[in-house]
Amino acid sequence: MIYAYKEDEARKILSAAKGRVLGAYFIGSTKTSTIPGISVAGATPELTLYTPAVDAEYLFCGRPLSTDRIPVTPEGIPTPALITRAALNSSGIPFIVVDSGSYVEPRIPHVALPSRTVGERVDSGEAIPYDVAKGLFEEGKALARGIARSAELTIIGESIPGGTTTALGILIGLGYEAWGLVSSAAPKNPLALKRRVVEEGLKRSKLPSDDPFEAVAGLGDPVHVSMAGFLAGTVETGSRLILAGGTQMAAVLAIAKHTGVPLEGRVLVGTTRWLLDDSDLVSLVKLIHPGVPVVACNLDFSGSPYEGLRYYEKGYVKEGVGAGGTGIAAMVRGTTHKRLLGLIHEEYERLMEGR
Amino acid sequence: MIYAYKEDEARKILSAAKGRVLGAYFIGSTKTSTIPGISVAGATPELTLYTPAVDAEYLFCGRPLSTDRIPVTPEGIPTPALITRAALNSSGIPFIVVDSGSYVEPRIPHVALPSRTVGERVDSGEAIPYDVAKGLFEEGKALARGIARSAELTIIGESIPGGTTTALGILIGLGYEAWGLVSSAAPKNPLALKRRVVEEGLKRSKLPSDDPFEAVAGLGDPVHVSMAGFLAGTVETGSRLILAGGTQMAAVLAIAKHTGVPLEGRVLVGTTRWLLDDSDLVSLVKLIHPGVPVVACNLDFSGSPYEGLRYYEKGYVKEGVGAGGTGIAAMVRGTTHKRLLGLIHEEYERLMEGR
Repeated sequence: MIYAYKEDEARKILSAAKGRVLGAYFIGSTKTSTIPGISVAGATPELTLYTPAVDAEYLFCGRPLSTDRIPVTPEGIPTPALITRAALNSSGIPFIVVDSGSYVEPRIPHVALPSRTVGERVDSGEAIPYDVAKGLFEEGKALARGIARSAELTIIGESIPGGTTTALGILIGLGYEAWGLVSSAAPKNPLALKRRVVEEGLKRSKLPSDDPFEAVAGLGDPVHVSMAGFLAGTVETGSRLILAGGTQMAAVLAIAKHTGVPLEGRVLVGTTRWLLDDSDLVSLVKLIHPGVPVVACNLDFSGSPYEGLRYYEKGYVKEGVGAGGTGIAAMVRGTTHKRLLGLIHEEYERLMEGR
Repeated sequence: MIYAYKEDEARKILSAAKGRVLGAYFIGSTKTSTIPGISVAGATPELTLYTPAVDAEYLFCGRPLSTDRIPVTPEGIPTPALITRAALNSSGIPFIVVDSGSYVEPRIPHVALPSRTVGERVDSGEAIPYDVAKGLFEEGKALARGIARSAELTIIGESIPGGTTTALGILIGLGYEAWGLVSSAAPKNPLALKRRVVEEGLKRSKLPSDDPFEAVAGLGDPVHVSMAGFLAGTVETGSRLILAGGTQMAAVLAIAKHTGVPLEGRVLVGTTRWLLDDSDLVSLVKLIHPGVPVVACNLDFSGSPYEGLRYYEKGYVKEGVGAGGTGIAAMVRGTTHKRLLGLIHEEYERLMEGR
């Protein structure tokens, strides 16, 4: 484990992982991911629209259902959902998948939010309707009140290709100087393109604003606001929270903060070492809220027999589907690094053999 | 608490209610409920199609969303979801709503099963496609594996108007001599009509059969088979189970038994005193599996200041939405009869005042 920021506070929150834990993985699409060059979370820009559903299917039943194979980058590097699945199964953590607006309905049991919708391209300045943004927040909150109330620790993760761009949009829309601070699943972060897309949308909107739902409506997406609502409901129940993800989690924190949710001592950002190496996540989180710790899972694929996994060490993929945060929770619950690695290898082998 | 059958075994299972409990409430529709005289779970036969969604909405957020008011019988007697909601909230039990095929999508976060479908009238002999029946079972099972695996006790309930008729259909379809053994939400059980409807369907089918999916496909509905799948997945995780309902739970038990799920020492039927008084539930359960205990929640509305609730004592409504079994779990967790009654009265008042 790497305690990147506020170790003592992080340890306090993580101690809850030994008790009742619940995982919630939010999926959704934004057409922003179809802008060539924005997202590598799919073999082609069009295929990125299927990635959230297929990530969920794989997480749930160990194989893709809506497509032939699990999501891969254009280079063929597999989804981080491999890590998440291995972590969940090694530690027996119960979990749900929540559909905030997946382009295709996942072919597994999943929580459907009534306001779910696919987000429009962020450069339009009209990502989702304002009422939908508010609805998703409230529905996320209601869901957490219903399901998270007996958990001591809740993990929330996401699968939304194009999500670092919409996260940037949300942060900019709320007036944060976040240009250049978001990460990427590609080894070469297309920051100039992301900036151009968000700036285009910004021009067409009335942002920035202090209203998080306006920021989401203009430059956001359906997923981050649903997660922020779920966070709000979870905090109400008294459960602690791991925001499992990279720089996108700053957008979730920002939405929650601007709706008045207390964060200090309750929430931390849990990510991967690869993500930490790629970005200044700590600065970004501090920019939103200086009281939120950052922890990274120390998984190391450099000795892996599989090239697809060794690519993670070269800056490909890095994080997603709550991989880092779920790995952290599994480790606190007693899964060793070696066992987690072994399970990930098993998953990888099984998938490559098409079993 | 009334230990109607196998007290020692029941106490053993119920002791798990002090630990981690999860509630799962399955909703779905069958057009059987629109046959005049079959169901009183709605003000009119047509309105029964909305009852499952509105029950779920009320359970989740305390008010109806898809209709103006909560489900009532033609006489205006309110849904047993009042009891369920009071029991869940008094004891902090987390829960989910699972849509197996509601006529309208509930306007709250809910688990959607990919194979969800509204059932056709049972007298057609073609209630749901065979593959759908199998799909719902598998999806229920997968859901339980994902979400129930940290629970020590799981409660499953249902809202499906016309459900006693389809339950009868499933039992007859599997070759059980269940004619006349199912209960009703009406004080005068329309048994002759139920028999006619099921016999009509039976004639048009190739039943009886030992294959539970054939029985469900011919004379069943989407809900009971989903619950049986969820039961199967829950048993796998090691969690104990309360089948929260009346005679319909015999259909769930029968489907599970015919797919080879071990039931003894793991599952009990939890119901209400009103239901026990109305039917020979114990004989019916014994007919399916002599090792499954039956327990009833001893709620008493005879001293209630509200006529709508006092009607329960006259044989109206009796059970539904897992009311009895959820009440039992709440009581084992420390909710007193007095407190539960007080909360139910609060709910009733609030609803009558339209708050």
